[in-house]
Amino acid sequence: MYSLHIEFFGYFAAILTTVAFLPQLIKTLKTKKADDVSLVTLIMFICGVVSWIIYGYAISSLPILIANIITFILNFFILISKIYYERK
Amino acid sequence: MYSLHIEFFGYFAAILTTVAFLPQLIKTLKTKKADDVSLVTLIMFICGVVSWIIYGYAISSLPILIANIITFILNFFILISKIYYERK
Repeated sequence: MYSLHIEFFGYFAAILTTVAFLPQLIKTLKTKKADDVSLVTLIMFICGVVSWIIYGYAISSLPILIANIITFILNFFILISKIYYERK
Repeated sequence: MYSLHIEFFGYFAAILTTVAFLPQLIKTLKTKKADDVSLVTLIMFICGVVSWIIYGYAISSLPILIANIITFILNFFILISKIYYERK
């Protein structure tokens, strides 16, 4: 029962740190700008997430794979939106 | 040797997704604004990171603990800076 509580924190943490980027994407699409969002942060973070995907695949960890693929998709769209709106 | 390469991706991923928030903090402090950074994203992400710290402590994982404590500190300062500059 105790370890079940621990696992709950793990899954809760994984869901929160993944879904957290959805409001940023929605905000960027709504306001049509993300000037204050650091480009370096986005690029470094996406590179890190890609490394997590490679690591998750290598150690056959489905939770790491799923969480990071979603995080990658969300942050990739934030990056594309930021670049797109800055060029307009 | 092969597993050493896999571990390298794990550590590389952990370092990148942690240090990635430093340029965001520097940018926020330099420009004195973070209007485009989503408040909901910051709060959700910080709650997630706190859950990772609890999880890391519970399963006695030093890498999870260290990475998430640094991520927490960086994002906490981004959140405080954002709120501070918005009120000014």
